[in-house]
This record gives sequence, structure tokens and C-alpha cells, in this order.
Amino acid sequence: MAEFIPPGTRWFDLPSPFPMKRGGALQGARLAYETWGRLDAAASNAVLILTGMSPDAHAASGEADPAPGWWEWMIGPGKPIDTRRWFVVCVNALGSCKGSTGPASADAATGEPYRLAFPELSIEDGADAAAALVRGLGIQRLACVVGNSMGGMSALSLLARYPGIARGHVNICGAARALPFSIAIRSLQREAIRLDPRWNGGDYDDAEHYPENGMRMARKLGVITYRSALEWDGRFGRVRLDSERRDDDEPFGLEFEVESYLEAHARRFVHRYDPNCYLYLSRSMDWFDLGEAHGGDIARGLAAITGLERALVIGVKTDILFPIQQQEEIAAGLRDAGCATRFLPMPSPQGHDAFLVDEERFGPAVAAFLRALPCTAVNDKVA
Amino acid sequence: MAEFIPPGTRWFDLPSPFPMKRGGALQGARLAYETWGRLDAAASNAVLILTGMSPDAHAASGEADPAPGWWEWMIGPGKPIDTRRWFVVCVNALGSCKGSTGPASADAATGEPYRLAFPELSIEDGADAAAALVRGLGIQRLACVVGNSMGGMSALSLLARYPGIARGHVNICGAARALPFSIAIRSLQREAIRLDPRWNGGDYDDAEHYPENGMRMARKLGVITYRSALEWDGRFGRVRLDSERRDDDEPFGLEFEVESYLEAHARRFVHRYDPNCYLYLSRSMDWFDLGEAHGGDIARGLAAITGLERALVIGVKTDILFPIQQQEEIAAGLRDAGCATRFLPMPSPQGHDAFLVDEERFGPAVAAFLRALPCTAVNDKVA
Repeated sequence: MAEFIPPGTRWFDLPSPFPMKRGGALQGARLAYETWGRLDAAASNAVLILTGMSPDAHAASGEADPAPGWWEWMIGPGKPIDTRRWFVVCVNALGSCKGSTGPASADAATGEPYRLAFPELSIEDGADAAAALVRGLGIQRLACVVGNSMGGMSALSLLARYPGIARGHVNICGAARALPFSIAIRSLQREAIRLDPRWNGGDYDDAEHYPENGMRMARKLGVITYRSALEWDGRFGRVRLDSERRDDDEPFGLEFEVESYLEAHARRFVHRYDPNCYLYLSRSMDWFDLGEAHGGDIARGLAAITGLERALVIGVKTDILFPIQQQEEIAAGLRDAGCATRFLPMPSPQGHDAFLVDEERFGPAVAAFLRALPCTAVNDKVA
Repeated sequence: MAEFIPPGTRWFDLPSPFPMKRGGALQGARLAYETWGRLDAAASNAVLILTGMSPDAHAASGEADPAPGWWEWMIGPGKPIDTRRWFVVCVNALGSCKGSTGPASADAATGEPYRLAFPELSIEDGADAAAALVRGLGIQRLACVVGNSMGGMSALSLLARYPGIARGHVNICGAARALPFSIAIRSLQREAIRLDPRWNGGDYDDAEHYPENGMRMARKLGVITYRSALEWDGRFGRVRLDSERRDDDEPFGLEFEVESYLEAHARRFVHRYDPNCYLYLSRSMDWFDLGEAHGGDIARGLAAITGLERALVIGVKTDILFPIQQQEEIAAGLRDAGCATRFLPMPSPQGHDAFLVDEERFGPAVAAFLRALPCTAVNDKVA
């Protein structure tokens, strides 16, 4: 998968051994990240971005890599996350296959890929790794941590485990715990991969022995739950494929535009993502529960987040995977924890993935929040 | 699959040849059905029930088969569909494997199962077959046709193709056309079956060479979309399986109650449903569009339904597969067509399948509608 690591990637060596929450430790592990803008002398202008499950660290173009990133319209000079003012760091999640250490990485002890010998991965491990990177960059306190989707889980974990690590927080389509509908969807995605004979208990390669069918199924189910029925009604309706785009010899083959759209998404994904990494990160989301140490009480889990000054929590009304009630819950909990919190329910039709595409709504919201965020902490101002 | 045909089943021989909408014809085809109650002398008290994709005709217990049916609380003496007053007929859909002719049935020409040689199946074919049964039972006009889910599509097709065939109509979680989200879900279910090597282009058997994995995946995805996130939050939350119900040697195996629930549902389904029948019926729903002959204009398609006097259209707010906007659309169209129509949006938490389980809401609603339905037609009364 090495060819899919963006050229602007930088690496941070995690402390070794790096202990994992559910047991075991990583030796010689590292995090892949990219940065934009410049850290100021007081190291007070850093914005950390924690991503969803599949993105790499290349969130935007920059000097080291001019290719557009996955959040190109959000990050850059004069953009909502304005790199003239902020030093922006985007991390590739621990356990991913886009540069950070994960199941597809070589185990230093054997020189072979970890595969299923990788220790059980939790959202908390990703948060610990991100915290180590922040400290390693010389940052005592982030101006803001931004987390999308799985990154929203990681950000809450980071804030809870490292009180005061950030002054501001933007949580987008995140969750303080996994709910059964989302667990069911992810369980089915994992089963599709596991049932593919080429998965072979995790022992495959990137070429002929790659579980392509399982990954295609998992990705299609993902895309179905990342978008929304409403969006597709307007976008595809009941439009059929042209006859030249159909294979009429294939029984029950593709016929509607929406089927072709899913197929195209799936084809772009397979062979560009490692199946074992997919399984590990998927399961880590199921396990996440900020109320775990509080008898399942999310409110108490959120109340443990101290030292956060301002938060913006955004949910999307058409999101079925991280439904908007979950962001309402986060906002209420942060407010109770004493943080000045704004909850923004977005009417975007695009579902969970709206934050990737609905520039008109998400851009101004994030821009306004960051514009109002003081460069130094409230407490620092007094000094 | 013969062992899964309920013992109370009766058969009706369809006209032979029976022409199919998309081409071809069936020879010697038949419909499986069950009845409850007695047809009155004027043949004016018949209630026809058209089912969703998977149920058989055994909707309720009766003299010929005392086993509880899939709508046991709805049909019977003193129940909402009161068999002391109504002669109730439930049809197993054309193309199914529960008694009616379908891809798993023997082709009279060869003596072998049709498999993929079965002609393309449409909702309209099912409606034509149901109309033939109604006439064959000596019924000129139904008191009411009740359709659930796919049966709601079939009922609308029946009403549009046979003006005046029913005085009353109850449409539950139905749709006047398939929308892209539902098409996407069904497409993925079909792909799971088709990708299973044991499906083998439709040539499998019921034992060793049965595409069990594909059918399990299809059924799990079905159950996910038949119920709702809200119901599962209350029902399963984040409850884990007891250690004795877990297989810790299975990587990424079942861990949460919701995963076990899906697995149990899937196991009850496989080997009890024919995969080719599943593919045919699933695709027939994608194709259904009551606006097809009217440039895709559903309102005009519904306006073609004449002679219907009263309708009850029920939708469920948590239904993601046949979302409630689709039932609103049906109700509006029937009203415009001159039918006295009541639209009932149900707050049931159970999603699409609520009509199978939410007795407290659906029972009284259907009972009240049928109680108010005159035994003879408005026009007949004058005569």
C-alpha cells in the first residue's frame, strides 16, 4: 500500500514501546502527518485535525504536495481553517494504511506485516498517539482539535484523556459512543471482508490474493450509509444506465445509475485500502464508549472533559450512521462540563459525508468559530 | 423448498399461458393461497392480502393449519381483520418459493427447476396473477385489498390495472415506485448472493451447494433496513454477549447483542428461502414505478386508480426502506383520484417491519377502517 502514502507525509516516532489500551504494545511505531502554515513562537496557534476511518493525512494541498487534499476547500490561506493564522496538523490515524503504523505495517520483531498479530486497536490508542505527536511538536496546548466522524470520537477521547490539551474543539458528525445500528452496519462490512476466501484469515497480498469482493461490498455498504436517501432521490431518481454501460449478459447486473455510482465508488477504494486495517479501525469504533469508565454514562464521560473553552458541534439531519442525536448529546455534555458550546444541526441532504462536500454550509460555520477563537487562552490573557 | 409450504395452502391454476409483462409466458403456473372466513352469497365480503417479499400465504391460523401465522394478531374472529365478517384471502406472491410458481418451481417444459430461465418478473405480473385468482374465486369486486411493503406495490398495481376491482384499500409501508436508496440496498443484497461461489449462476441445491453465506449477508442487510436505529438503541444498546456465547478464537467475531440478533435472524432464513426467488422478487421491486406509463409522474399513475371508494394509507416514521414520504405520496394521489383517503403516520419505533409487530398501533387502525367499510359498495346500495 506504500504507493498510496501522499508525498507530503511527515513521520513522528511514537514512544517505544507504545502501550495499547486493550493489551500489548507497539515497538517502533510511528504516525504519518502533514502540516500547513507556521507554528507561532508561543506554539499557541495549532489546529489538529483527526480524520474519519479512510482518509490519509493529505487534507489539503501545500508546498510539499500540490495535489488537492480531501478537505481542500476547508484548509488553506483565506479558507475556513486559515493557514495564514493557524498551524494546521492532520494526522493519519494509528492503525491506518496511509503511513501510520497499522496491521499492514512491518512488525519490527519479524520484519513481516503484523496482519492479525497487530494488537487490538481502540480509539483511545489513536488519541494517545495524537497526544504524543502534539507534545512532540512542542505544543503544550492546541488552539483547536477538529474531529470528523471517527475523528470526532478520537477528539473526544483526546480531550477526556488529556485535560486542557485544547482550548477549542470542532466536533463534526462525531459520537461519544457507538450505537447498535452503526455497530450492525460495521459488523456486516467486516463480515463481507472475512467471508471473502481471499481474505484468508488476514493473509493476502495487494495483487491477485486481495479480498476484492469483500472490500467492494464493505465499501458499497459504507457509501450507502455515508450519504442519504434524500440526496439520491434528487441525484439519481430512477435513471437507468445507457445500454452501452450495461452488461446484459450479467444476470441481475447493474441497471440503475445508483448501482453504477456505488460500483464506481467501490472500485476506486479496493486495492487502495488494506483490508486488515479496515477491520481493525472498524472494530475500534464499535468499542468506543466515552461512558465506559462511568457505568455507560456518557454525560459523566463528557463531564470529565475539563479545560476546554469553546466548542462547535455539528450534526447532519440526514446522517443515519452517526445520527444527529449523538451530536446533540456531545454538545449538551460539553456545555455541562462548562465549555461554551454551539450546536449546529445542518440541513445538508448529503448525510454523514456532508462535511466533505457541503462547502456552503460547513465552510462558514467552521470559519466563524475559528475567527472568534482567541489566539491565546482566556487564562493566558490575564498573565 | 417444498417442506416450507404451509399445510393449509390451496392452489389456483393461472391461465396458461400466463403472459409476463417484460416478455415470455408461464405454462401451467399456479398461485398458492389460504383463506379464512366465508365468502357471502353476493361475493361482496372478500379481503385480499398481498404480502411483502418473504412471507408465505399462512398469515393466520385456521382450520386447515392451526399453527400461528405471520399476522396472527391481525386476522381471525374478533380480530382487526375479522373473519366472522370478512372472507380473507392471502396470496403467496408469484415468483416466491412458498407454493406459488417461481424460479425454484419445475418448468413444465423440462421437468427441471426454472432457475434463471424463469422469465423476468415484475410487480405487475404478481398483480395480474392476483386478479386472476380473485376472478377465479368468483369475486367481481373485493371489499378491500390490503398490501404490506412489496404487497403495497402489488396492490397499487392491481388497483391501477383493474379499475374497480376493490372498494377499499389498506396500503401499509408501500410505495408507488422504488427509490434509489432502496434500490441500492437491494442491489447490494443481490450482489452478496451472486458473489457467493455456491450461487453458481443460479445452479445450486438446497443442501451442500446452497449459497448460505450470500443469503446470510442479504438477510442481515435486510433486517438492518427493516427495523430502526431507534428501536435497537432501546433494545440492545451496547450490551455484550456473555462469554459462553462468544467465540474468541474467531477474529472479529460476534461480540455485541445486536450482532448476535442479526446472526440469529439470518440463520432462521437461510435454507428456508430460495436464492433465485429472492433475486427475482428483489429486482421486481426495483423495477416498479406506477408512473412508468406517465413519464414517471406518480400522481398521474395514482390518478388512473378509479373506482376505489375508501383507502387507509399507513407509513412509519422510522422506516428507512419505504420512507414515509412514499406513503404520503400514495395518500395524496389516491385523494386526487377521488378516493376518501386517510393517511396515518405511525410513530412506531420498529421501522419498516412495524406492521408485523406493533399490534397496539396497527390493530386498531386497520380494525377501525374495516369496521367503517360498508359491506356493499356505495353504488350498489342505490340499486
